[in-house]
Amino acid sequence: MSTLIDTLRHIVGAAHVLTDGDLSAWEQDWRRRERGKALAVVRPGTTEEVAAVVRACAAAGNAIVPQGGNTGLAVGSTPDMSGTQVVLSLTRMSAVRAIDKDNLTMTVEAGCILQNVQDAADKAGLLFPLSLAAEGSCTIGGNLGTNAGGTQVVRYGNARDLCLGLEVVTPQGEVWNGLKGLRKDNTGYDLRNLFVGSEGTLGIITAATLKLYPKPAAQLTAWAAVPSMEHAVTLLGLAHQHLGAGLTGFEVMGRFALTLVHKHMPQLRVPFVEQEEVPYGVLLENSDSESEDHARARFEALLETAFEAGCVTDAVVAENLSQAHNLWHIRESIPLAQAEEGLNIKHDISVPISRIPAFVEYTDALMAREIPGVRLVNFGHLGDGNLHYNVQAPADGDPKAFLREQEEHVNHLVYEAVAQFGGSFSAEHGIGALKVEKLQKYQSPTALAMMRAVKAALDPQGIMNPGRVLPAAAAAPGASA
Amino acid sequence: MSTLIDTLRHIVGAAHVLTDGDLSAWEQDWRRRERGKALAVVRPGTTEEVAAVVRACAAAGNAIVPQGGNTGLAVGSTPDMSGTQVVLSLTRMSAVRAIDKDNLTMTVEAGCILQNVQDAADKAGLLFPLSLAAEGSCTIGGNLGTNAGGTQVVRYGNARDLCLGLEVVTPQGEVWNGLKGLRKDNTGYDLRNLFVGSEGTLGIITAATLKLYPKPAAQLTAWAAVPSMEHAVTLLGLAHQHLGAGLTGFEVMGRFALTLVHKHMPQLRVPFVEQEEVPYGVLLENSDSESEDHARARFEALLETAFEAGCVTDAVVAENLSQAHNLWHIRESIPLAQAEEGLNIKHDISVPISRIPAFVEYTDALMAREIPGVRLVNFGHLGDGNLHYNVQAPADGDPKAFLREQEEHVNHLVYEAVAQFGGSFSAEHGIGALKVEKLQKYQSPTALAMMRAVKAALDPQGIMNPGRVLPAAAAAPGASA
Repeated sequence: MSTLIDTLRHIVGAAHVLTDGDLSAWEQDWRRRERGKALAVVRPGTTEEVAAVVRACAAAGNAIVPQGGNTGLAVGSTPDMSGTQVVLSLTRMSAVRAIDKDNLTMTVEAGCILQNVQDAADKAGLLFPLSLAAEGSCTIGGNLGTNAGGTQVVRYGNARDLCLGLEVVTPQGEVWNGLKGLRKDNTGYDLRNLFVGSEGTLGIITAATLKLYPKPAAQLTAWAAVPSMEHAVTLLGLAHQHLGAGLTGFEVMGRFALTLVHKHMPQLRVPFVEQEEVPYGVLLENSDSESEDHARARFEALLETAFEAGCVTDAVVAENLSQAHNLWHIRESIPLAQAEEGLNIKHDISVPISRIPAFVEYTDALMAREIPGVRLVNFGHLGDGNLHYNVQAPADGDPKAFLREQEEHVNHLVYEAVAQFGGSFSAEHGIGALKVEKLQKYQSPTALAMMRAVKAALDPQGIMNPGRVLPAAAAAPGASA
Repeated sequence: MSTLIDTLRHIVGAAHVLTDGDLSAWEQDWRRRERGKALAVVRPGTTEEVAAVVRACAAAGNAIVPQGGNTGLAVGSTPDMSGTQVVLSLTRMSAVRAIDKDNLTMTVEAGCILQNVQDAADKAGLLFPLSLAAEGSCTIGGNLGTNAGGTQVVRYGNARDLCLGLEVVTPQGEVWNGLKGLRKDNTGYDLRNLFVGSEGTLGIITAATLKLYPKPAAQLTAWAAVPSMEHAVTLLGLAHQHLGAGLTGFEVMGRFALTLVHKHMPQLRVPFVEQEEVPYGVLLENSDSESEDHARARFEALLETAFEAGCVTDAVVAENLSQAHNLWHIRESIPLAQAEEGLNIKHDISVPISRIPAFVEYTDALMAREIPGVRLVNFGHLGDGNLHYNVQAPADGDPKAFLREQEEHVNHLVYEAVAQFGGSFSAEHGIGALKVEKLQKYQSPTALAMMRAVKAALDPQGIMNPGRVLPAAAAAPGASA
C-alpha cells in the first residue's frame, strides 16, 4: 500500500496525507457509534487534486470515503475497519468562489462551513437559508451529500432545493463542471439531484452554486400552547394561510421534551411548562419583507384566529431578538436535555402532515403497551411532517440495559408504524452505514433495483463510499472487477 | 407485428388500440415540424395496463413513445417514421386520485390536463401554481416529463419543484410506487428527479403527488416602462427585496415584440407602445397573503423606489381583474403576433440573470452585423433568466427562403453566444428529437457520459422513447440486445 500513499503524498503534499497519530477526528463518527480505521486521511486543496486522488485510488482499487465536517448522524463519512479505505476530507477546499447579487447565487467549495456560507451571503446583503444545529462545523458539501433539512424547510426546502449547480469529481476521476447558476436548464437528465443526497456513493461534490434570497426586513418568533396534535396541524394550516411564504419556521414540541429542558436548563424559562394540561408547544417564525410592525400585526391576526378556532390556548410573541433567540434555544436544547437525562433511542421520521395526529396517537399507545414506563421525547419540524420521535429509557431501571435490550425492538415498532402511515424512516439524516439494512427492508424493491443499477452504472468499480446507502456487495453487480 | 397488436388489444381493449384512420393527432408534433408513423396508438386506462403494455412491447422489442397532450415544443412525444414504435397515450388516465388539504398535496394521474389540476386545487381552496400557455391541453405527466416552466417559476419553481412523488412504470414493466406526499425523505437516490425531465426515455410517469399552496388573498399586476435591460435587472432586484415571495411574475418584453402585438392585435392596447424611446416593458405580478389594499401599497412602494432609482420611467398598476388579464394577454399574445407577422426562428435560452444585459447587447449587435435587416423578438421570464430570443425574418425578402437559408446559422450564432455567457440552449422546452445534436454539442462530455450510463442502466433494451434526449445508438452501449 505504500505505493498508493506515496502517490497521494505526491498529489496533495506530504503534510496533507495523514497516516499516523490520532486520526479519531476522521475515523470516528460524531455520535461515537462507530470507529473505523483509515489507510490514510487525504486533504486535497483543489478540485484537480481531488480528481487525481480519485484516479490514484481507482487505479489501486482502494475505496474512498468523502468527508466534510463529520457531523453526520448516520455514520456515512467514516471509514470501515478494513484499514484500506482512504478518507478524502474536503475541509481545505473552503473558498467562497463567487457571489452574484443580481443572479441571487453564490458559488462555494464543498468544504466551506455552513455558517461561513451563511455569513458570506449575509455580508452581501442576502440570505442563504439552510440552517441546522451543526452549522458551526458541518460543511456545505456534507449538507448537499446528505440533502440536509433543518429549521427553515417549510419555506425554503431542503439542501436539494437550495442548489442550482454542482461541480463533481466522478468515480473515474473526471471533473464534471455543472456550476451554471441557472434557474431553468432542461438539457438532459438531472444529474445534480442524483448527486445531492447520494452520500458520496456516486462521486464527490467539490463545489456548488447555491440560491440566495433577499433578507427579510423583520423576523418574529412566537410560542403557542396547543391542546393536541390535531390542533397543531390546524394551526399550521392557518399559519400557511395568514403568513403565506412568511412562515419560515413551525416546530412542535411534546410536553415531556419540554419538561426535560425545564429540568436540565432551568435558566431557559420554557413558556407554559407549569401548565400541566398543555400537551404541546409550537414555535412559529414569521419572516416579513416589509417591517417589524407589519410582521407583528400579521402574527397577531393569525393568533387571534387560532384562539377563536380553539387551536391555541395561550401564546407569546417575542418582544425582541433576545427573547426570540431564547425561544429557539429551547427548541434546540431538546437533544442536549435528552442526553442529560440519559440514554435514548433517536428517530428521524416523516409522515404526511395530515396523518401525524393519528400516527402519534397510534404509536404513543403502542409504545406504552409494549414497553411499560417508556418516555417519549416527541418534537420536530411539523411544517415538514418531520418528527424526531425519540424514546427515552424508563426513569427506573438500567438505561444501558434498556438500550441493549430494546433498541432493535423500539426501532422495529416505530418504523413499522411509520410504514403503515405512509411515511419515511429517514426524513433528513440519510442512510449512511447505519440504516443500510433498514433501507433494504422499507424501500420498494423496484426502487432499490433502480438505485443499484444507477450505482453500478456510475461507479462500476464500487470504490465510492462502499457499503453506504446500498450494501457493498449488491452495489456492483457485473462490475468490471 | 400482428401478434403485438393482438396482445395490446387484449390488454387495453380493442377500442383503445388505434391503427387505422387519421392518427395525425398522435403522429404529428404540435408545431407540425415532424410527422411520424406509429405501429399503433395505445390508450391504457390504468397503471396496470400501462405496465402490461410495456411488458408486451419489451417482449416484442418494439419501442414505446409516451405521450400526454402532445403540446411539446421539441418533438419528444411523436413516433419516428419506422412504423414500429408504439405511441402510449396517457390521456385516459386523467383522475384526480386524492387531495390532502392538511398535507397541502394532491395526487393526480399523468393524463390529467394541467387546467383540470389547477381547477381541482382551486375547488379545494388551494393553489397549484404551474401555469403555461398550453395549460388547456397539456397534461401533468407531460409537464413533469419535460420539467415544464411557465410564468410563476420566479416564485414556485419549475414542474420539478412542485412534485413530491411519482408513480412510474419502468422499462421492464414494473410499477414503482413513489407517491409518498413527504416533504422530507432521504431514503436513497433521488429517483423522482431522475424521471422528471427525462422526457419518457427512462420510464413512464403514470401519476404524481404535487405540492399545493394557500391561495393568495389578492393578486395585482403592473406594467413598467424601463429604459434598458440593465434597468430591468435592477428592477427585478428591487422587486425581490420589496415583495419577497409575493413576486410571482416578472416578464420582460422588447419593444419590437410589443409593436407586433400592437400591430396585429390593436384591441389589446399595449401600454407605452407609442413612446418610441421605451425599449422594454416589464410585467410584474404581486401575490399577497393579506389583502388587495396591502398588495397595492407594496406595489406602490416598489414602483416609487424604482422611479427614484431611474429604472422605471412610467408604470401602470391594473385597477381590476379585467385590466390585469389584459396585461397578461399582451404578454401571452407575442407568439401569435409573431406568427401573424410571418415565419421566425424560436429560441428558449437561459443565462445567469446578471449577465443578461451583456448577453443581449452582444447578441443583438452580432445578429445585426451577420444578418442585415434581422428583427429580434426578445421577451421572456427575466425573473428566471429565461428569454425567448426569437428571430423574425427581415421585413423585405422571402421569409421561407430566410428560414431555409438562415435557420442553422441563426441557431449557431445564438447558441454560441449562450455558451459564451454560461447559459443553456434549452431552458424550459427540453431536448426531444429536435435538439439531440445540440445537446451532444453543448452539454459537457462528462455529463453526457453519465447520462448514457444512466440510460443504459435503467433501459438496457433501449425501448423507451429512443432517439429522444440522447442519440438512439449511443443509448444502449453493451445492452443485452
